[in-house]
Amino acid sequence: MKDLDTPMQLGAVELRDRLASGALSALDLVEACLARIAAREPEIGAWAWIDPDYAREQARRLDAHRVSGRALGPLHGLPVGLKDVIDTARIPTENGCALDAGRVPARDAFVVERLRAAGALILGKTVTTELAFLHPGKTRNPHNPAHTPGGSSSGSAAAVADAMVPLALGTQTGGSVIRPAAFCGVTGFKPTFGAIPRRGVQMQSHTLDTLGVFATDPLGAALVAEALFGFDETDPATAPAPAPRLLDTARSAPPLPPVLAFVKPPGWDRADAETHAAFAELTAALGDQAFEVALPTAFEEAAAQRARINMAEMARYHYRYVRDGLDRLGAETRDALEEGARIPARDYLAALDWPKVLNAGLDEIFTRCDAILCPATLGPAPEGIGATGDPIFNGLWTLCGTPAVTVPVLTAGNGLPMGVQLVGPRGDDARLLRTAHWLYGWAGA
Amino acid sequence: MKDLDTPMQLGAVELRDRLASGALSALDLVEACLARIAAREPEIGAWAWIDPDYAREQARRLDAHRVSGRALGPLHGLPVGLKDVIDTARIPTENGCALDAGRVPARDAFVVERLRAAGALILGKTVTTELAFLHPGKTRNPHNPAHTPGGSSSGSAAAVADAMVPLALGTQTGGSVIRPAAFCGVTGFKPTFGAIPRRGVQMQSHTLDTLGVFATDPLGAALVAEALFGFDETDPATAPAPAPRLLDTARSAPPLPPVLAFVKPPGWDRADAETHAAFAELTAALGDQAFEVALPTAFEEAAAQRARINMAEMARYHYRYVRDGLDRLGAETRDALEEGARIPARDYLAALDWPKVLNAGLDEIFTRCDAILCPATLGPAPEGIGATGDPIFNGLWTLCGTPAVTVPVLTAGNGLPMGVQLVGPRGDDARLLRTAHWLYGWAGA
Repeated sequence: MKDLDTPMQLGAVELRDRLASGALSALDLVEACLARIAAREPEIGAWAWIDPDYAREQARRLDAHRVSGRALGPLHGLPVGLKDVIDTARIPTENGCALDAGRVPARDAFVVERLRAAGALILGKTVTTELAFLHPGKTRNPHNPAHTPGGSSSGSAAAVADAMVPLALGTQTGGSVIRPAAFCGVTGFKPTFGAIPRRGVQMQSHTLDTLGVFATDPLGAALVAEALFGFDETDPATAPAPAPRLLDTARSAPPLPPVLAFVKPPGWDRADAETHAAFAELTAALGDQAFEVALPTAFEEAAAQRARINMAEMARYHYRYVRDGLDRLGAETRDALEEGARIPARDYLAALDWPKVLNAGLDEIFTRCDAILCPATLGPAPEGIGATGDPIFNGLWTLCGTPAVTVPVLTAGNGLPMGVQLVGPRGDDARLLRTAHWLYGWAGA
Repeated sequence: MKDLDTPMQLGAVELRDRLASGALSALDLVEACLARIAAREPEIGAWAWIDPDYAREQARRLDAHRVSGRALGPLHGLPVGLKDVIDTARIPTENGCALDAGRVPARDAFVVERLRAAGALILGKTVTTELAFLHPGKTRNPHNPAHTPGGSSSGSAAAVADAMVPLALGTQTGGSVIRPAAFCGVTGFKPTFGAIPRRGVQMQSHTLDTLGVFATDPLGAALVAEALFGFDETDPATAPAPAPRLLDTARSAPPLPPVLAFVKPPGWDRADAETHAAFAELTAALGDQAFEVALPTAFEEAAAQRARINMAEMARYHYRYVRDGLDRLGAETRDALEEGARIPARDYLAALDWPKVLNAGLDEIFTRCDAILCPATLGPAPEGIGATGDPIFNGLWTLCGTPAVTVPVLTAGNGLPMGVQLVGPRGDDARLLRTAHWLYGWAGA
């Protein structure tokens, strides 16, 4: 990427500390974001909606709040980009869909309320693929605009990668957080299913939809995710529970050197030779800290069962789009909605049993390691922006509900980034982020 | 019914008190049950499995326990009949299905473990319709063997009605507790959905299946239900919560005279003229304590949406019967499984939203009354044992998950009993049983 000389390089945690101390003002940080966007947005196309005056107004209010000496939220003054499937009160939220043009929600999503309460600044809405599925938006990969940024959280990944904003939120139903983060060379974190309430977020599949975050590094992801974990009675996937201390845990030293279980998930044979080579090298370098383990054969079924659940539930939640204008949807969305409508309830219900089966197999592996290690994608971002790449290494973890994080520590021969994915046991998000932070430092050293 | 001169007439609570004081021995009570069964079972056919020696052996052990001076469980010495879809360790549990002939579970169901821990005696397994659906078993109505006892908990209702056993357990997915209880003239109680864990009970529909109880009177139902409410982590419908004191609440005096909201549920026009007349008379006699209220029009959809959920889930859970011997199933079961397999997941998922809509309407009604009042069935038990009667007045409450109880206080012109059904707000089972006990006493006076 060109011209990268902005405060965003400091990472979200350092920015937060400078904002809190007054060494950096919220307005100065916002101006840096806006300057970068002015310079690069015509080429990258990461944003679905942005209003510089609204951003500056929030920054001035936050700066005044700090000067008044009142208590500061944990994200005080940090700008955040929101995937345009996340409702924002009085701000358009169009779900990347022509049929939702001009849609303006009356209420903020749960996560937006949490961000505002934590002192964050809503910089704007980022481009999503159509209805967070496979039909791409306008976004290009900041590392090479001839390549896809991945999807469906295309704009969130690209905006963070291009230093337009330090933090962004996205969603993952198949591979929509981890894949674009890996393609764009940032940290993407998909927490345990149910950790972050989904009220006010476009529903595609209640069994799979998971909110996630983007940051330059694992600590930034921990910082923002910690503000979002919680309970909302309208989201039955969530439960009242003590909030984990993600950031403090993530930046603490592991008590023992982390041990990683390297797996070759279904689809491994289709991965680039470069991916095969990179992981051979990586596991060799990790030495005793990595061992290879085979996933149970049941995982061969994971992709088909996940797709069945996704399409059946999507056909139910998106029925109004089918009714109101199927011909105005992209071919990928249309085909999935038609296929979803044909799935029998009996097969859908049988598919719902798979996460239990698969997690029984994973539980055994997790007794022997801190995290599972595997590629985030088949290889670097493919050329062209007509498709968003293959989520084959992501969907199985979404189906299992296990937390996953991709750490930007590999570079392909063509200069594009590649991600290393770590997967942890459900509920152990803090330890997973600690392992990711460790890997990020280890690979950098 | 002929020859009814047994201790069962005392009701389960009085029997329990006598057993606890030693005024009645468990063995004497079991002998009374066995004598009644020996005399009447050839005509009634309430039992799927019974072993007099096993019953006597339990009774002797319980009597010895009492004599030893150790603490007694709340159901000490009380014989219970179990619908043959409830697993019993080392005792056949055949689900009323030829394909399950000879099936012997290794472990007791949750409710059976609870019954044994409470000191109850497992008298035997009662007849269920095939797979707790509509294809009838051998049972006949004790009040007139030419008439159906109702279903699917046919044997449990008939056995309690015929004084073969003081208490029995059943299940309701449509109207399988309330309908047979009303037809046989006993109290049937279907608690709030999720109140009693279903581990070890044949699954037909996880969204609808509800365990229920049979007794001669509402206090007997409260006594046994109180021992069954609880939490099991394998049943996601249940939650850890303090156990309600059903019996103490049920037998306490209402602080104010109960107020009942009389509703004419969908299907009212098909009810017998006798039912119309009985409820006109009943509400007139209740005076200021009853007022009529219309159910929201959304309830017109309840039966269709409930059937859709029931058949779709049944097609999933009973797939192995389809695979192993569809031709050995009754026509009612076969047709439902075939129809269920054709239901699209999209329609099934849309049906799952209905309980929320319907309960929003009910919540408003429950602010103005202690319970809803309506008939339990269209009329008294129809003639013939080839069908189990229409559950039209039951399925809507099963879909809503509201607790329902039928109280045996009406008699038709042909001498057969009719039930008065009371329905309460979800979670308020104790108050509903108090209202039922009040109505039972009021009608008797």
